[in-house]
Amino acid sequence: MADYRFDQSKGYGKLVDQAKRINESAFHLRSLVMEKNRCTDFSISGGGIFFDYSRQRVDRAIMDLLFDLAHEADVITQFSRMNAGEKVNVSENREALHMAARSFSTVPLMVDGRDVRKDFRGVLDQIQTFSTRVHDGTLTGSTGKPFTHAVVVGIGGSYLGTEFVAKALEAFADQSISLDFLANVDIHNFGAIGSRIDPEKTLWIIISKSYTTVETMANEDLIRRFMADRGLDPARHMVTVTSKGSPGDQGGGRELAAFHMFDFIGGRYSVTSAVGGVPLSIYLGYDRFERFLKGAEAMDQHTLSAPPEKNLPLIAALVSVWNTRFMRYPQSAIIPYASPLCKLAPHVQQLNMESNGKSVDMAGNFLSEPAGTVIFGEPGTNAQHSFFQLAHQGKPFPIEFIGVLNPQYQMDEGRFKGVTHQQELWANLLAQSTALATGKNDENPAKWFSGNRPSSILVLESLEPEDVGRLLAFYEAKTIYEAFLWGNNPFDQFGVELGKVTAGSLRKVMAQKNENPGYAFDDVDPLNRPYLEMLFSGKLAEQGDAGSGNTPEKVQLTREKERRG
Amino acid sequence: MADYRFDQSKGYGKLVDQAKRINESAFHLRSLVMEKNRCTDFSISGGGIFFDYSRQRVDRAIMDLLFDLAHEADVITQFSRMNAGEKVNVSENREALHMAARSFSTVPLMVDGRDVRKDFRGVLDQIQTFSTRVHDGTLTGSTGKPFTHAVVVGIGGSYLGTEFVAKALEAFADQSISLDFLANVDIHNFGAIGSRIDPEKTLWIIISKSYTTVETMANEDLIRRFMADRGLDPARHMVTVTSKGSPGDQGGGRELAAFHMFDFIGGRYSVTSAVGGVPLSIYLGYDRFERFLKGAEAMDQHTLSAPPEKNLPLIAALVSVWNTRFMRYPQSAIIPYASPLCKLAPHVQQLNMESNGKSVDMAGNFLSEPAGTVIFGEPGTNAQHSFFQLAHQGKPFPIEFIGVLNPQYQMDEGRFKGVTHQQELWANLLAQSTALATGKNDENPAKWFSGNRPSSILVLESLEPEDVGRLLAFYEAKTIYEAFLWGNNPFDQFGVELGKVTAGSLRKVMAQKNENPGYAFDDVDPLNRPYLEMLFSGKLAEQGDAGSGNTPEKVQLTREKERRG
Repeated sequence: MADYRFDQSKGYGKLVDQAKRINESAFHLRSLVMEKNRCTDFSISGGGIFFDYSRQRVDRAIMDLLFDLAHEADVITQFSRMNAGEKVNVSENREALHMAARSFSTVPLMVDGRDVRKDFRGVLDQIQTFSTRVHDGTLTGSTGKPFTHAVVVGIGGSYLGTEFVAKALEAFADQSISLDFLANVDIHNFGAIGSRIDPEKTLWIIISKSYTTVETMANEDLIRRFMADRGLDPARHMVTVTSKGSPGDQGGGRELAAFHMFDFIGGRYSVTSAVGGVPLSIYLGYDRFERFLKGAEAMDQHTLSAPPEKNLPLIAALVSVWNTRFMRYPQSAIIPYASPLCKLAPHVQQLNMESNGKSVDMAGNFLSEPAGTVIFGEPGTNAQHSFFQLAHQGKPFPIEFIGVLNPQYQMDEGRFKGVTHQQELWANLLAQSTALATGKNDENPAKWFSGNRPSSILVLESLEPEDVGRLLAFYEAKTIYEAFLWGNNPFDQFGVELGKVTAGSLRKVMAQKNENPGYAFDDVDPLNRPYLEMLFSGKLAEQGDAGSGNTPEKVQLTREKERRG
Repeated sequence: MADYRFDQSKGYGKLVDQAKRINESAFHLRSLVMEKNRCTDFSISGGGIFFDYSRQRVDRAIMDLLFDLAHEADVITQFSRMNAGEKVNVSENREALHMAARSFSTVPLMVDGRDVRKDFRGVLDQIQTFSTRVHDGTLTGSTGKPFTHAVVVGIGGSYLGTEFVAKALEAFADQSISLDFLANVDIHNFGAIGSRIDPEKTLWIIISKSYTTVETMANEDLIRRFMADRGLDPARHMVTVTSKGSPGDQGGGRELAAFHMFDFIGGRYSVTSAVGGVPLSIYLGYDRFERFLKGAEAMDQHTLSAPPEKNLPLIAALVSVWNTRFMRYPQSAIIPYASPLCKLAPHVQQLNMESNGKSVDMAGNFLSEPAGTVIFGEPGTNAQHSFFQLAHQGKPFPIEFIGVLNPQYQMDEGRFKGVTHQQELWANLLAQSTALATGKNDENPAKWFSGNRPSSILVLESLEPEDVGRLLAFYEAKTIYEAFLWGNNPFDQFGVELGKVTAGSLRKVMAQKNENPGYAFDDVDPLNRPYLEMLFSGKLAEQGDAGSGNTPEKVQLTREKERRG
């Protein structure tokens, strides 16, 4: 393993040959997918998910070689080592223990001589107690009113996963508490939320591992000001989710409570830790959060125990690497035919692209080409009426369709054209995947469909908290298996550093201008100086026919406006 | 023009050579962008937008050749012809008159011997009168209560553009009317809205040109049932936006009012017609909708009058075609540093990918490669904490950054690290674009940044209704110019047909099963049959270790629950 290099592996060259065979032969999904046993032979259930890769441009020979590659990269062993607490995040010398956050196992898991299971259990108990006090009204804001709004203040990994889960389970949010997300250092983001909530009844959940994330800290600062300005004690409206001993873990009346997160869980893998636990327990009730954890645990158990040929996340990862490197598709879409999963694609975008958008492998060698792929998506059928024109007749890309057998809502909806909404939705899901695979000949070139466009179908039985947990764990494991195949470290993100440093320099000159209005940005590079001038004058540079001629209409964030929201 | 073919044009070969030169030479954005006049020389203002392409991998020679290509493709003439009412949508033998929808010109515009300006004016007047009656309470629901919820029922072009604008101007929504979008034929979509609204105070706006769109009709049917079941008269809670004489334009008490849309405006270009006009006037007030139209008109006037070298949408289109075909970037991102623009990317995704995701040109010839590109995006700085790892260190793709000089909200926010939220946001926008262009050398490969990654920056002075109109019109014109360069028809969408036909067949067998539970799908292909079995049994096929073991928790859409929402 130590000397495994993806593009120098034994399997790599063979798979390049297979891709050539597929591309040059008459291999067309049209004929393949209609084979009697194709669907049964190229699909698998596990951990409560059904995964069908029969509409992918693979055959038995290719799958065998992909499994050989997985063996060569020793991915199963690596995954187990990760689960056992080894320091698989080599560049940062850390463990990757997100699976421990949802393990209800009582077998000790020792990290640096300490059983971390007890730490997890302690945080869960604290979440349960706290959320119960919020729900039964024993905990109130500083004017004695119960909390009816919760706002998650966090960005990236402290935001996207929780938003995905909250949206997916919105139908079950029966705690009479709304949930908003203040992620961006954008006054519009704050303004919209500030207009919507009642500050007296609002609980702010500040999430930052280091408690130094600029966006989050700027928002925390603004919240304290906003609350104090309204005669409310910020400390009685605020909890933190942060590392032990961070600036957000001071106690002493600076916040109502601090829930700990751990170094060995990275942001994008943190939904099942306190990062998701605090807001989701408040929004959905602790019991549902625990059910969500148990679904994730069930998928973890599948992933850890199933042999490669029956391992859903591994097979999905193999197909993804096949599509990206060997078939050379430049992006991949996730299209859930279930509106509650509308925030899955943005979550997986972060999870996968931040984990695998890398140019170096774990040993620090440059890869011959960068790993990873662009992921995007919108729910179906919406996507059909949006960008599927290109999916059918433009440059091809693989799609992961997701379907749910039993919807969350039950109502007597009657039938339109002989079918229910749910059936119509499924007819469309299947039709898209089928049409992409089979295509259609037509004498009119504008009505000709190439077909041979790959997709997978992933099926959930329902959209209960457990199912959302399964889905989350599936995509986490798939991402990590992909990384182990590419050979990169899925747990670091050095690619975000340069932007931060550069922003720091620009912030400095802006602060200087704030201090000294006469300062003319003389020492700023010619690339950015025109923008600083525009920003501080509030006017567009006139490099052409006209300015905007706007008469701005400003929204004041007054108490009256807040109340109306 | 008639014989223009993109990949056989004179300009094509030359640009291929230029791309080779750029890729093989030492041409690196790092040195280029720091040239003293680079930013001023490669940026332009017009129609109230500032557009900077100095961080793109182009130089004067390349831009000159791109302008030559535009000349060869005769794009300016085509654009004017479109505006003058010629039948530029050749495959459907129709005009493309979206610009007329926001033109306040009084010069007649004759289509088939009829001045369509009067038709547009008539619809606008009707919208103004109707929305005023909703706002002043003279129009009420069937129990005499004023409307406080409006729900847009439409999909694709009847949804995405309006959602973009409504979200962008949410801060100004002072009519005490909430706006929801029921797009999908997904009971979750209906269920979530049904739980949120008060049916007695709800106005449903059904939008479908043909009034046969399956999703919309299935929802219309469900709404009538839902309202009637609650003792409410659906006809007094419903308006339609549809073609004259369609099944949704029957009058006779089937709806409160019908607003006409026209054959010569396609769905994805329809936001400035009644499609956006009815919901946006109700949500924001008619005056703001008219201001939005005027902003779009200002950008149209720029586009129609500016010479190619100063024409923002044309330059943006040239850069996009350069990046897609000659630099061979496989996708493009739109990253607005302004949360209210969070729905711009999904709108442009439809607008551009459905217009240009084509394999044939206007004359019906196959292109040597499909046109168009994948577009995706999320607001910054959120995107920095999500997928920008890949943008910096994975496979490169071009990015369109969008900044706003003056935010919608005004509040005393203080300063964090010496700067306001707005300044911090701008520091990040500029930093990302700079870091992508310049990169950074580092001895540690994991901390090395290639740079040379292209981006554009688009600046708006503020986010007033006019600005959102400008932005909308900019992206429409850019899309159309791209099409004229590729040589394809941006107004048809034959690529969505096959899926519809296939869904029809599947719907039929589902309906058959509903009628006759003994029917066993014997005649369904082996590809889809397992899914029909799963759907009708409600159980996952067990192709592996286990089913889900779920105990479903169903949400009933009862009147009590609705009231709580």
